This record gives sequence, C-alpha cells and structure tokens, in this order.
Amino acid sequence: MATAASYETLDWSVDADGVATLTLSRPDALNAFDLTMARELLSVFTTDALDDDVRAVVVTGAGRAFCAGMDLSAPGNVFGLDESLEVTPETLRDHLSDPAYDDGVRDTGGKVTLAIHALPKPVIAAINGAAVGIGATMTLAMDLRLASTKARIGFVFGRLGIVPEAASTWFLPRIVGVQQALEWVYAADILTAEQALAGRLLRSVHEPDELLPAALELARSFVVDRSPVALALAKQLVYANSAADHPLDAHLADSVAMWHTSIGDGKEGVAAFREKRTPRFTGLASQAPRILPES
Amino acid sequence: MATAASYETLDWSVDADGVATLTLSRPDALNAFDLTMARELLSVFTTDALDDDVRAVVVTGAGRAFCAGMDLSAPGNVFGLDESLEVTPETLRDHLSDPAYDDGVRDTGGKVTLAIHALPKPVIAAINGAAVGIGATMTLAMDLRLASTKARIGFVFGRLGIVPEAASTWFLPRIVGVQQALEWVYAADILTAEQALAGRLLRSVHEPDELLPAALELARSFVVDRSPVALALAKQLVYANSAADHPLDAHLADSVAMWHTSIGDGKEGVAAFREKRTPRFTGLASQAPRILPES
Amino acid sequence: MATAASYETLDWSVDADGVATLTLSRPDALNAFDLTMARELLSVFTTDALDDDVRAVVVTGAGRAFCAGMDLSAPGNVFGLDESLEVTPETLRDHLSDPAYDDGVRDTGGKVTLAIHALPKPVIAAINGAAVGIGATMTLAMDLRLASTKARIGFVFGRLGIVPEAASTWFLPRIVGVQQALEWVYAADILTAEQALAGRLLRSVHEPDELLPAALELARSFVVDRSPVALALAKQLVYANSAADHPLDAHLADSVAMWHTSIGDGKEGVAAFREKRTPRFTGLASQAPRILPES
Repeated sequence: MATAASYETLDWSVDADGVATLTLSRPDALNAFDLTMARELLSVFTTDALDDDVRAVVVTGAGRAFCAGMDLSAPGNVFGLDESLEVTPETLRDHLSDPAYDDGVRDTGGKVTLAIHALPKPVIAAINGAAVGIGATMTLAMDLRLASTKARIGFVFGRLGIVPEAASTWFLPRIVGVQQALEWVYAADILTAEQALAGRLLRSVHEPDELLPAALELARSFVVDRSPVALALAKQLVYANSAADHPLDAHLADSVAMWHTSIGDGKEGVAAFREKRTPRFTGLASQAPRILPES
Repeated sequence: MATAASYETLDWSVDADGVATLTLSRPDALNAFDLTMARELLSVFTTDALDDDVRAVVVTGAGRAFCAGMDLSAPGNVFGLDESLEVTPETLRDHLSDPAYDDGVRDTGGKVTLAIHALPKPVIAAINGAAVGIGATMTLAMDLRLASTKARIGFVFGRLGIVPEAASTWFLPRIVGVQQALEWVYAADILTAEQALAGRLLRSVHEPDELLPAALELARSFVVDRSPVALALAKQLVYANSAADHPLDAHLADSVAMWHTSIGDGKEGVAAFREKRTPRFTGLASQAPRILPES
Repeated sequence: MATAASYETLDWSVDADGVATLTLSRPDALNAFDLTMARELLSVFTTDALDDDVRAVVVTGAGRAFCAGMDLSAPGNVFGLDESLEVTPETLRDHLSDPAYDDGVRDTGGKVTLAIHALPKPVIAAINGAAVGIGATMTLAMDLRLASTKARIGFVFGRLGIVPEAASTWFLPRIVGVQQALEWVYAADILTAEQALAGRLLRSVHEPDELLPAALELARSFVVDRSPVALALAKQLVYANSAADHPLDAHLADSVAMWHTSIGDGKEGVAAFREKRTPRFTGLASQAPRILPES
C-alpha cells in the first residue's frame, strides 16, 4: 500500500476496509491551499488513491478549518499563473498536453478537481470547519458532502475580483440547480451549514465530533462486500450521463458496462444472491473496462 | 384500437379518455422482469401505445409488487447477453442497427426505457409496491412517479456486482441531482416511499387504494381538451433541451414547434380562448412535426 | 447613460449604484406581451442594459400584473409568424443570420430571452402578479426569481394547443429538475407563489410592498464593490458549464477566466483583501474576455 509518508501538507491513512482518510494539514494556516498542497493533492489522487487497496476516500481538515482557501500571501501571481503568456480558449486547448505551458496557465484548483473526478471510487467530503474559495470548490468534485454544524462555506471569488474555478461551475448546477448556484456565486457570502443544507449542497449535517465517524461509516457502507469494478463504472456513468446528449448515449455506455460486469463480478453477485450468502468479488477498479468512446 | 390481447406478462386497457393502464402482471413472481416481459414492453410502447386513441399511459403492477427486478432464475447469462462477443463503446455504436448483434449485447432494460422515452405522450408510474433494479430504473424514463405508502424502491445493482442500467444514469441526475443520485447508486439500499419523496424522486405519495385513481386522474388532467401534437412536442422539448448545449439550440427547436402549432391546433386554441369555449383540437401525435435536427 | 425615453411599453431607470429597474408597462392590458413590447425588450437588453453604468437589472410589472402573456387580440398570426414559410430544423438553422426570414419564423419570445441570457450582468425577476405564458417563460432566462404573495405563474401553453417557448425548456429543467418541469408543462395550470416556491422555481416570496425593495437590495448586494468583469464571466461560466460535456471543458473556460482576472481586477481584489480595505475595481463588463471557444 502507498504510504505517502513524505507529504508536507497532507496526512493520508487507509483502514482495514480500504477507506482512506485524507487530511488537509496546515492547521496553523487554517489548511490554506498553496502550490505545495496543490502538487501533493494531485499526487495523492493520481497515485496513492489509485491503489486497489484503497476503496474510497474521505477528505477532511486538521484543526478547526477544512480549508480557508488559496493562500494569498504568495509572492508574484498568487494563483501561480504566468502573466507573460497570452491565453485564449483555443491556445489553452491546443496546449493541454504541454506541461510547460500548462504550469503557467491552467487553473491550479482545476488540475486537482479533475484528478478527484477521475478517481474511479467514491470520494466523500467531511467539511469540519471553514471551507472557502478553493476550500469550497474542491468539495464539489467529491461525490457527497457531509458537514459539521460548525462548517462555513463560501464561494467568495466575487469579492476578490476573480471567478469560481476548479471546474466548480460544472458541478454546482448539477448539485443544486442553476438558480441556487447563481445566487451563491453572485452573493459571494459565507454560508452556514444550515443554509448549505437547505440549498441541497450538503448531504447531511452532524455534530462536530460525529462528522468524521459518519463520513467513514458512509464510505464503508459503499465499499464493503461491493465490487470495485461496479463502483468505478457506476461513478463514471452518473457523471458522464448527467451531461450526455441523449439517453441513447447512456444506453450505449451502460450496455458496455453491463456486458462486462455480467461476465465478471456480476456472475459472483448473482450466485451469492441465489445462495443467500455474501459475495466475494475479485474485480479491481484498476481493471475496469472503458465504457465511453475515446473522445 | 390495439387490443394487446396476447401478452403473457402485461395487461393493457384504454379508457374513454384515452388514458391507458399498463399493468405488469406476473404477480406470483412479484412481476419480475424476464425476457418475455422485456419483449412485450417493447411491443406495447412501440405499437399499442403509439395508437392515436391512446393519449397517456399509466404503468402499475398487479398484486403487491410493482416489479421485483430482473428474474435471476434464468439459465445462462441471466441478463440475456452473449458472453462470446467482444464489446467496446465503438463496436457497440457501429452495430446499433444490427438486430442480431443487438440481441446479444445491448442492455435489455435500456431497449425498453428508450421506447418509453420516445413515446410522444405522457407516461406516469404508479408504484404500488416493491420496485427494485430494473423495476426502479424503468420508472425513471417515465415522466412522473407517484407511489403508494407501501412502495419500496431500490437501485440495488451494486449489491450484485453490476451497474445501474436502462439509461437510468441519464434520467436520475436530471430528476434528483448528482449528489442524491450518487448516494443512492453507491448505497444500493431499499428506500421507503418517504425517503424517495424527500429525495425528490417521487412526485407524490398516496394511500395504497388511492394511488391508481390519483395517477389516472393526473393523466386525464394532462390530456382531456389538450392538443396531442402540443403534448408530443412539449415532451420532446423538455427532455432534449435539458441536455442541449446552449439556449440557442432550444430556441431553434421551439421555434419550429411554435411555427407548426401556430398554424395547427394553436389556431383553434386561440379561437376557443377568445370565444371562452372548450377547444376542439384535431391534431394527432402521430403527425407531430420533427423539431430536432437529424442527428 | 442611455435614457430609453421613447419606449411605449417599458419604463427604464438606473439608480446611483447601477441597479436598473425595468418595468413592463401596459397596465391597462395587464402588461400583455405584444410585438412592440418584444421589440422594445430586445432593444433594452441589447443597448441600454449593456451600458457599463448599468450593473444589474431588476424586471417587474406596472400595476397588478407582471405580464399576462402574449396579447392574443393581434390580427393574423397572433404569434407574429409567417404562415407561408416552410420551416424545418435545418432551414431554420441555415437562415439564422437572415433577418427577413428571421422575422417570420423565429419565436418572438426566444429572441428576447436569448438577449436576457446574453447580458453579462445579473438579471432578477420581481414577479408582482400574474406571470402567464411568455410572462412566465421570460423570467426563466433571468438569473433569480423573487415573487409577491400575490404572484400567479402559469406555463399555460398546453391549453392553447401550443408549446412552451422562449427557450424555456432549456432553463426550466436546470432550475427545478425534469419531473417538476414536465408536470407544470403538462398540467398547464396557474401556480400560486407558494406552489412555485415549493417547486423551487422561486428564490423567495415577499409581501407585495416588500417585493421590489427586496429585489433591488439583492441586486445591489451582488454589484456594489464587485468587479463587473468577474460577474460577467461568472454568469457565463455557470450557464455554459451547466451544459458542458465534461468538467475538462469547464476547466478550460475557467482557466481562461482566472488567468485574465488574476492579471486584472483580481490584483486589486487580493491587494484590498491583504490591506483590509474595500477594493476599487476598474474592469468593465463590456471588456470581459472571451472564455468559450468560438462555436
């Protein structure tokens, strides 16, 4: 199993059921997001979390905050962008595969949330305190959001003269609808946990000391005695088909997924169901078939 | 009018207002979905229900269940798939028009839900009891879902090592949002009617003996003194535009629909409105114009 | 500043904070929508409201109605369409840039709502009374909807033998989900403010004399001490990404927006945050960069 012992800004541990706890850990800085944390988050979601021994990831913050947002004390362009480049939608798309260009232009938060989104397993946010700016938007790429009564969530970009990033405007309307998304983005206010729950951003709100146990328990309920392949494909299907043009596109993708699972873990699942016993799935998320056309 | 007298697994009747009741009828097997029921559902939605005398369809189950899911007692591949074929997203799309290939690979539930989706008239689910697996996902392609207090709904695929099918991941996030969709798919639990209502899957919950009358009454309110052409086009517009790239695409589609209805049933509708009388529409759903570009 | 003094059917005023009040003003006709109002709405949203001195727009109705719908007393084709033309999805798309063809075929309401949608600043509906037909659908292209307890809202097209227009079926499912959208479109009933709030169409409901002040205050909270460029880009991002295929598309768009704002108003925003003072943004909405690929 990956150990990730060398991270400066993150703690990472995996329990016996394969439920990982990822803790944003710069408590003296309210876990503010800096370029080191960005690099380490990208690493953890593209290496450690991909290990087949990891079945689900719960993300929380050390101390009293979840993540207070981008660290605005950095020198130069605080967002890590190269001001000398000329950026248009076309040049950016053309240069997607150029790491050098990439480093100066692509939104840092988005590189992290795309990695979270691509992880073929459940990711749950346990929002223990302030989640502001990138601290709020990074949770949108996670599949479910649980929060403490002490959580405070703010899409505050508008107050800084910048825009919501990290692909947040792809996720937010799909979670809460466009009217609520626009109000929060325009207002740029700090929401209480109750407000965020009423607006359907949060799945549930918990007493502070019950938050992490609840998130871990929920993650466990998703993965114990479940097929990692089926989970990986289900996550892809829900997100991809939420954006697919026509139900026929969904039908093609889930036909491929059904065909593969019906000759794989589905055989064991059906057998166990008939025999009224617990299934013993052997598929691995790392071996899930491709179900969407190559774009 | 179509009689559908020969179906083994379905009952079909149409009342004087054109409201059809389609009853899944294998009560001794809790109306479990088998390949005969799949074939008959495909037939009813592509022939009987297309008859212009049918204005809306209410779907319910005989006895105490709605549909207990795929019948897992079938021999061989219980999902009716041909294990000898090699399936990728590309081969599947290439072979869409090949019925032979089709029968061994395309998800059976999806063939049914695509037919429900394509029916140019309102379809309402009256979920009278257990609706599990394909019994749950087939209702997502219906336009509204009413349920009895005794309904139990489960997207249980994950427990069997398979994935949600029947294009369900296209519909579910559009009904309840991605966060709720992911939770239900990951959890793979059985929901009570109250839970499904709170999660916005259901339009309303009724006492058991009031469910079917409520669904029929709702269907009647949609179609009596209404233009079948306008209903057909409205259904297409809502679904297609929920997935359209830009409001301009919607504008083009509804411009075509407005132009056609304004020279058709719209003339009678406006005249009746001015004369304060009930309109007498003469358009037929089977003659509704094409409003979307040929893909 | 634009004065718009010559409009027959609209009143337009802009306060010191740049919050414009646009009043539909044919009170003797319950502000019914006719071709003059259509032309004037198109003008106000593509000229007056584009002025950089205008920061947000609140739309309401004079007298007791918001807008009672299309004026059905017009001679000829009451929807202003040319019945002699032959319209298909392809011909319509081909002729999009032909103003002559355009005038006889494109849905009038849609031309208005596309202009509302394209305005790079917040637009808020203050629904003071009856909002029926185009009176209801025009509010869907506005970003938020506040209503009086006396508001009555109806997607009544089905009763006239026509379809929901004004690109309404693009917006409505993104606001309330497809199930609620379909029920309202099929039922074609008049909703009370309470029903519309429960169905999540409305952001909030107010006592009649508190509605306009609440809408103006909300608009003010969105724009005072905010960057017009950041607001313009945020509006585009939320709508475009609600329909984007993949989070990667969102990432590319918001990377361009972040890069531009980080070298523009974002510099002042970060500086003001560090210095604990109010920012003085100098960007203009009219100069917001293009963040989406040319289609």
